[in-house]
Amino acid sequence: MNLRQLGEDRLLEQILPRLARTPRVLAGAGDDDCAVLEFAGAGQLLLLKTDCVVEGVHFTSEAGPRAVGWKAMARPLSDFAAMGGVPQFALITLLVPPSKASRWISELYRGLEKSARAFGVAIVGGETSCIEGPTAISVAMSGAVERDRRISRHGGKPGDELFVTGRLGGSIRGKHLRFTPRIAEARWLTEHFRVHGMMDLSDGLGADLPRLARASQLGFEVDESAIPKTRGCSAKEAISDGEDYELLFAIAASESQALRHRWKTKFKSLPLTRIGRFIPKSGTRNQRLPRGYVHFQ
Amino acid sequence: MNLRQLGEDRLLEQILPRLARTPRVLAGAGDDDCAVLEFAGAGQLLLLKTDCVVEGVHFTSEAGPRAVGWKAMARPLSDFAAMGGVPQFALITLLVPPSKASRWISELYRGLEKSARAFGVAIVGGETSCIEGPTAISVAMSGAVERDRRISRHGGKPGDELFVTGRLGGSIRGKHLRFTPRIAEARWLTEHFRVHGMMDLSDGLGADLPRLARASQLGFEVDESAIPKTRGCSAKEAISDGEDYELLFAIAASESQALRHRWKTKFKSLPLTRIGRFIPKSGTRNQRLPRGYVHFQ
Repeated sequence: MNLRQLGEDRLLEQILPRLARTPRVLAGAGDDDCAVLEFAGAGQLLLLKTDCVVEGVHFTSEAGPRAVGWKAMARPLSDFAAMGGVPQFALITLLVPPSKASRWISELYRGLEKSARAFGVAIVGGETSCIEGPTAISVAMSGAVERDRRISRHGGKPGDELFVTGRLGGSIRGKHLRFTPRIAEARWLTEHFRVHGMMDLSDGLGADLPRLARASQLGFEVDESAIPKTRGCSAKEAISDGEDYELLFAIAASESQALRHRWKTKFKSLPLTRIGRFIPKSGTRNQRLPRGYVHFQ
Repeated sequence: MNLRQLGEDRLLEQILPRLARTPRVLAGAGDDDCAVLEFAGAGQLLLLKTDCVVEGVHFTSEAGPRAVGWKAMARPLSDFAAMGGVPQFALITLLVPPSKASRWISELYRGLEKSARAFGVAIVGGETSCIEGPTAISVAMSGAVERDRRISRHGGKPGDELFVTGRLGGSIRGKHLRFTPRIAEARWLTEHFRVHGMMDLSDGLGADLPRLARASQLGFEVDESAIPKTRGCSAKEAISDGEDYELLFAIAASESQALRHRWKTKFKSLPLTRIGRFIPKSGTRNQRLPRGYVHFQ
């Protein structure tokens, strides 16, 4: 059965009862004109992010709908990780051709749900609209961060050491659909260390590291041989491939040793690698990295 | 110049500096991985809503981009009105074919901005993605409502009188692109009266009133001759046409007289009309109204 045959009301009847709720959800998907939610305490800041995956751009027509759902939710979650934030509520906008099998949509929601539940997020609303074109799924995420644990991109200082989690490159071979947003790692970092600047790697280290440096008006130098490469990837691929969804962050050199030691104990299966450091912007050793993924090209 | 030629970075350079900010925006569009915002006090609830307009469904290819932008923002604003809420922050997801003229997008943002500014909303982030298909604009809105001024759809009681703002029907002739979300009217209502249930009319009175009644497990009776019709519209059109974006609400009969009197003084140019009342669900006089707009059909 496709969407045109099923109709919106019956689609919602299938999807809504399954959605995860949390005690903070006073009115969720389908309950009212807006979702109504208990926000965290006064010491918290509100975080908002929206991210979209489009068929043919972020996933192929052959990709399994559960994996697509996981990815659609995990992308904004990765941005929450980059802020040291706690994700809480998601709204889903689904644009699909009316000929789309309702089973595909149902499986997509299973993937969205799985990813949401894994990170304590409640899906509290959204919309399904028909479009004669490729399928697109947009997830708008809201959440909170403690005022004193907020990490911006702007706090870097010359001499700060640069770290990345995991291994870079080759995401297109499958990781781009199955990655784990580094929420737990980011929360642990901001609990125990002063992180001077952090972002998630979505466009490739070669595009994202210059952005992070620029945000603090700094230059950088990178030991290319130190960059942790996915098995089978060249250094160039590790730098240029997009969609790693790993964390890139800067921390004072004085904290670097303690960080490496404690990380190994805490996150045994996820490598943390020092790849370089921030230098003053006028530094003549500022490197040119191969550029990462650029949209519209 | 089209979007493919311009590129995402230069598009953002054009758009970002123009976006409205408010003192609550600590990090806005383009500043960081998420928008960072001061939420209201502890006595407030968080409201979230996402709404999407699609070319060929919610606007024609000939519609002016400023008007499309206004509508895209005004639709979720209308839902905030229905909750008695104060909208604060918007995220924009724009899906456009790469051949789209960048001037069209720039004008679209002018419309989004105009609507946002008119209601005190800051555009704090979003995303532009290319899609080989019709243009779609999704707006995710967040805001707040005082705990004791929240209106749900569920609070109706038998005997409550039903009111609508404005005039119904014929929205397709232009109002659907230019309507005014009834934020000010809804805030005034919740300041001075106890509203038992409210929603905005998006699918037509014939579809939305049964929903409002069902939410309170009530029936309704309507005086069809009392329904305020847009000039040139039949009663059937006033009931069945969608996209009125007027408020429909229920209030105790004992407050009805005071409401009508004070409304006239406060909102001189906007009619408020009593169209009927809630009755017990078992009532035999429950009416069948022509159905409103149904998606996917």
